[in-house]
Amino acid sequence: MAPHMAEWDLKEIFPVEAMRKAAQLGFGGIYVNPDVGGSGLSRLDTSIIFEALSTGCVSTTAYISIHNMCAWMIDTFGNNEQREKFCPDLCAMQKFASYCLTEPGSGSDAASLLTSATLQGDHYILNGSKAFISGGGDTDVYVVMCRTGGKGPKGISCLVVEKGTPGLSFGKKEKKVGWNSQPTRAVIFEDCAVPVINRLGAEGEGFSIAMKGLNGGRINIASCSLGAAHASVLLARDHMCVRKQFGETLSNSQFLQFKLAEMATKLVASRLLVRQAAVALQEGRPEAVSLCSMAKLFVTDECFSICNQALQIHGGYGYLKDYAVQQYVRDIRVHQILEVIAMSSGPYPFLRKVC
Amino acid sequence: MAPHMAEWDLKEIFPVEAMRKAAQLGFGGIYVNPDVGGSGLSRLDTSIIFEALSTGCVSTTAYISIHNMCAWMIDTFGNNEQREKFCPDLCAMQKFASYCLTEPGSGSDAASLLTSATLQGDHYILNGSKAFISGGGDTDVYVVMCRTGGKGPKGISCLVVEKGTPGLSFGKKEKKVGWNSQPTRAVIFEDCAVPVINRLGAEGEGFSIAMKGLNGGRINIASCSLGAAHASVLLARDHMCVRKQFGETLSNSQFLQFKLAEMATKLVASRLLVRQAAVALQEGRPEAVSLCSMAKLFVTDECFSICNQALQIHGGYGYLKDYAVQQYVRDIRVHQILEVIAMSSGPYPFLRKVC
Amino acid sequence: MAPHMAEWDLKEIFPVEAMRKAAQLGFGGIYVNPDVGGSGLSRLDTSIIFEALSTGCVSTTAYISIHNMCAWMIDTFGNNEQREKFCPDLCAMQKFASYCLTEPGSGSDAASLLTSATLQGDHYILNGSKAFISGGGDTDVYVVMCRTGGKGPKGISCLVVEKGTPGLSFGKKEKKVGWNSQPTRAVIFEDCAVPVINRLGAEGEGFSIAMKGLNGGRINIASCSLGAAHASVLLARDHMCVRKQFGETLSNSQFLQFKLAEMATKLVASRLLVRQAAVALQEGRPEAVSLCSMAKLFVTDECFSICNQALQIHGGYGYLKDYAVQQYVRDIRVHQILEVIAMSSGPYPFLRKVC
Amino acid sequence: MAPHMAEWDLKEIFPVEAMRKAAQLGFGGIYVNPDVGGSGLSRLDTSIIFEALSTGCVSTTAYISIHNMCAWMIDTFGNNEQREKFCPDLCAMQKFASYCLTEPGSGSDAASLLTSATLQGDHYILNGSKAFISGGGDTDVYVVMCRTGGKGPKGISCLVVEKGTPGLSFGKKEKKVGWNSQPTRAVIFEDCAVPVINRLGAEGEGFSIAMKGLNGGRINIASCSLGAAHASVLLARDHMCVRKQFGETLSNSQFLQFKLAEMATKLVASRLLVRQAAVALQEGRPEAVSLCSMAKLFVTDECFSICNQALQIHGGYGYLKDYAVQQYVRDIRVHQILEVIAMSSGPYPFLRKVC
Repeated sequence: MAPHMAEWDLKEIFPVEAMRKAAQLGFGGIYVNPDVGGSGLSRLDTSIIFEALSTGCVSTTAYISIHNMCAWMIDTFGNNEQREKFCPDLCAMQKFASYCLTEPGSGSDAASLLTSATLQGDHYILNGSKAFISGGGDTDVYVVMCRTGGKGPKGISCLVVEKGTPGLSFGKKEKKVGWNSQPTRAVIFEDCAVPVINRLGAEGEGFSIAMKGLNGGRINIASCSLGAAHASVLLARDHMCVRKQFGETLSNSQFLQFKLAEMATKLVASRLLVRQAAVALQEGRPEAVSLCSMAKLFVTDECFSICNQALQIHGGYGYLKDYAVQQYVRDIRVHQILEVIAMSSGPYPFLRKVC
Repeated sequence: MAPHMAEWDLKEIFPVEAMRKAAQLGFGGIYVNPDVGGSGLSRLDTSIIFEALSTGCVSTTAYISIHNMCAWMIDTFGNNEQREKFCPDLCAMQKFASYCLTEPGSGSDAASLLTSATLQGDHYILNGSKAFISGGGDTDVYVVMCRTGGKGPKGISCLVVEKGTPGLSFGKKEKKVGWNSQPTRAVIFEDCAVPVINRLGAEGEGFSIAMKGLNGGRINIASCSLGAAHASVLLARDHMCVRKQFGETLSNSQFLQFKLAEMATKLVASRLLVRQAAVALQEGRPEAVSLCSMAKLFVTDECFSICNQALQIHGGYGYLKDYAVQQYVRDIRVHQILEVIAMSSGPYPFLRKVC
Repeated sequence: MAPHMAEWDLKEIFPVEAMRKAAQLGFGGIYVNPDVGGSGLSRLDTSIIFEALSTGCVSTTAYISIHNMCAWMIDTFGNNEQREKFCPDLCAMQKFASYCLTEPGSGSDAASLLTSATLQGDHYILNGSKAFISGGGDTDVYVVMCRTGGKGPKGISCLVVEKGTPGLSFGKKEKKVGWNSQPTRAVIFEDCAVPVINRLGAEGEGFSIAMKGLNGGRINIASCSLGAAHASVLLARDHMCVRKQFGETLSNSQFLQFKLAEMATKLVASRLLVRQAAVALQEGRPEAVSLCSMAKLFVTDECFSICNQALQIHGGYGYLKDYAVQQYVRDIRVHQILEVIAMSSGPYPFLRKVC
Repeated sequence: MAPHMAEWDLKEIFPVEAMRKAAQLGFGGIYVNPDVGGSGLSRLDTSIIFEALSTGCVSTTAYISIHNMCAWMIDTFGNNEQREKFCPDLCAMQKFASYCLTEPGSGSDAASLLTSATLQGDHYILNGSKAFISGGGDTDVYVVMCRTGGKGPKGISCLVVEKGTPGLSFGKKEKKVGWNSQPTRAVIFEDCAVPVINRLGAEGEGFSIAMKGLNGGRINIASCSLGAAHASVLLARDHMCVRKQFGETLSNSQFLQFKLAEMATKLVASRLLVRQAAVALQEGRPEAVSLCSMAKLFVTDECFSICNQALQIHGGYGYLKDYAVQQYVRDIRVHQILEVIAMSSGPYPFLRKVC
């Protein structure tokens, strides 16, 4: 992907064919079970894969990670019919998926979502809209959290909505600072009839399913930040070896040496935190949710800072689109914003036991 | 400018007419003497004006500040013929100026520049190229530092090169993270003959002239950062009043209240540092150079951080080009990179007297 | 004071005679009116004086600043009898004062204080206790906030309690990290009868008086932080000139040069913020309270950081009590803790107008 | 140790008996081979043990860790006679050891040390002095780096000097900010004759031995920082549950909840980095030295910051010696200073391969 990341960014191309090639390598359903086409790998494997892929293109990899999360949700919470209907196409990336939780009025406070699903016969009638949906408009399968019951998290269910369903439409394509290889649109439901058989899990289980998806989602996004930071440290190092000022290469500057060492140190600390969270989630350890939240918080912040310092080391070149470092900075900026639910819902062990 | 800043950014428009209107208000030569069309205002006035203008568009204001610096250099170091030839048009912004110091191989280490100017009769023959030139290609008057003598700062002279001079050409327009309303190009000299009467000051005085220009330049750029930070704090505050999560507006979040208070505090500290430097420069105090450098270093860093935190407070909206805060972030990012000469040439009083 | 600061720290000496010499220079009532023995200087003068004195001993200067605040409160809010009775002795530091606001259960939330003052004839009967009182036990005049009315700030009055009043006693002398030249004790009232004529202002005005005192108090404490930071930067610079490693003095280390320049920059920004707040308070500007709070927050944080970095530059020597830098670090650490009321009561202009 | 840490600090007690009890649990030679009395545990075990012990007393644990390092050096680089002579007593802590590398003129630049060892018959005659020696004067066995050959690291050898050797004396006991339960003195050699059989390894191997010791030393010191940070987070949490302000406990403050979550996150990241470095060192991986340096740098900085924030959460109580949090802050402050050799000798992998 690396040779294309600048072009995909500039021209805002959703690289469907490149992603299908990735799917041939097993990256369409990395932690989906093999019986429905998945690769059956662990969360730790997944983290390593997303870190590596994101050195090639953060934005594309981040979308792939969301797609994987959706495929995993169907694999895990769907019945066999649902699994067999959706997962093989998703794992092959013949179809693409979008995760629809956030609404214009409910970001961090996801449990207050308003999109309603009213039962009529064997269909739910959906009304409402979702905001900031990665892939929205260009994807085929929408995993939608909607309200089938009363207020709060217990009233939320999870439906799979297929593109082409009457009443499903999309907002304009958003112009963004980065993440330009994945389209972002609002997803709008107007009397959109979705078959009851498309519901994942029981009524009222939607919020729980959404949160379980996000545990992995946090590790995935943090892994994408790792890849950007790793690539940026290498770019900064390379630039320091080539760029001369005051009669010698920047690599001889004590100040920049220390800066680079500090960046590398924070990268290693970040990586360990992600890997540890991935193992804990895989093994179902009680601290897994806390560790996923910690990894998301620490790693997306530190890796943005690493990339931003790498840009600074590039001097004026860092500000030009001819140089990749600025794209890493722009692309991972949004990782600090995503899924801040992590903090608001406060699953930190020290806090929960506070008093 | 505010209603246009998004469009100028997206379409990369150099807003010539808007700037000429600004010139009618006296902003084309703010600290240039009135006898050649300038406004004759102080550095402190200038700082206040650039701060205010940059709330409307950082990129355009930053270019205007460079233009002002060039006009001031001609006014201050030029003889009467030069002043009368160039300044009135520049102050009216009928002509636009570019400052040409940086070269591909000499950024922070400006004194090592290689562009050569060889005397032949009553012309200098210029060969070499300049990099990252704001306005390059679209402007009319180039204030160029070039080598007329031996190595080091003493061999540098300052020439005014007019657009249309044979041998003057330009590189491709750079694609940048921000500062998109001002074109950036390389400026290339190939046997470019410039009349000796276009030299500002004596031979060998060029580096000194360049540095004196930059003292004011640092205050100006820092002032543009102030405007962006001020606007961003207000945008964050407004967003906090409107955006509801968890049943109340963000303005009720203790964490965000403290964050906003901290941002406002750093903004005030930044502003005081710029104003103090401006006064010191105006009065020719011995600590002026140190204060200009300190202001540039502190203010461009802190204001970037303020804008970036304001973006974060916007959540997902902060990442969309529909919202102005991201443009402030992108535009002022380059202010941290510019003129780092400030640090390298080390004019901090504590350091100079160190031993 | 400088030659004694280490000894006063180690032996926990309250340097009464040294302070009386300072009072002869006019430092016992710097911003108290001259008709009752004060020096009649401005807040800006006061800030400069406390900054200078604190380079000699932070802890002693900080106490002197509290003493000045008390003298100012009596001068400003007292009637002529009270002013004439207390101020001359305080300005001459023949008597020393303590400010008694904080209670064991009310720190930042000062308005919830519980110490009760019940009117009986021409006396108030005080019951309750005050915590962390600078000078407590060794001083002569206690400016005490106590509850004469209902809950909240409106029920609070301000009484002057003299040492020797029956029912007034003191807790044990606290062992502290720094501020060792000023004793800190609890101040305890058990049926302590205080004449009504010792009340400053009307009943219910106590909280307002306390807060007005603290506006200046914040500038004073911030000024003491400035002195410590200034002295520490100079100590670090001196150490860098003497200490050799890798065959040259530390002053040749690029990393440490940049570090020192950054420290100096933050010191200058801090100083400007304090001075600006002092001028605003003196002139009664509407933004004065905000600026005092901002100065306190920013300056005590940044100056601690500066001193702590200066300690680091000293290497192992910085950890030894033979070197002064560690005492500056220990002494100003508490400035970050004091008067955090500033933040909690939220007088930041951006926040107040938020919605 | 926890019940005694305040007293040991205040009275500067070197707790010999308490340490001997720790030795009975196997903590005198944790990673020393069992055949000479060691516990034969791994570096990872060691890290966990030191983290746990340091929650009880950082200063004492840090000394124990230095003692362990010395015992390991004799076990690893000594011959059987040396191992059998020294290790059993050290592992039982019947004798205590000190590590003597730093000199007054060579801190980070350890390889420039000047203490000379001149061969005379079967003895080396030592002259010179060592600075900042933990345990110096109160310990029995001094592992001394000295110059037997030419300049630079290759001229350094390692001798074991026993207390009581004529010509061995000690400077005054240093007064320090923390680490008060371990005495620190200069160690002075004046024609001090040490038997050649007390040399560890060959002539010229001393610097290499010293550095290998320090790899483990860095993990150990970082582990002691972890313990302090862990204890401080718990103290802050407990204080937040008890302390009421504004009508509720601090644990209900959103700002402090986020602060505590951030502290806990950085603690977990720190711990992972130490553990990873310990495993790498144990397994002799090529990146071990880098990881040890990274762990030392990151962890001692972050953990100081965590402890210092925990102090801040305590408000005024945090500044009193009755509360343990200030002792953690004072004790681990020196960890940031120690062994900065780590950075200067620059073993970061990214840097070494830079060009």
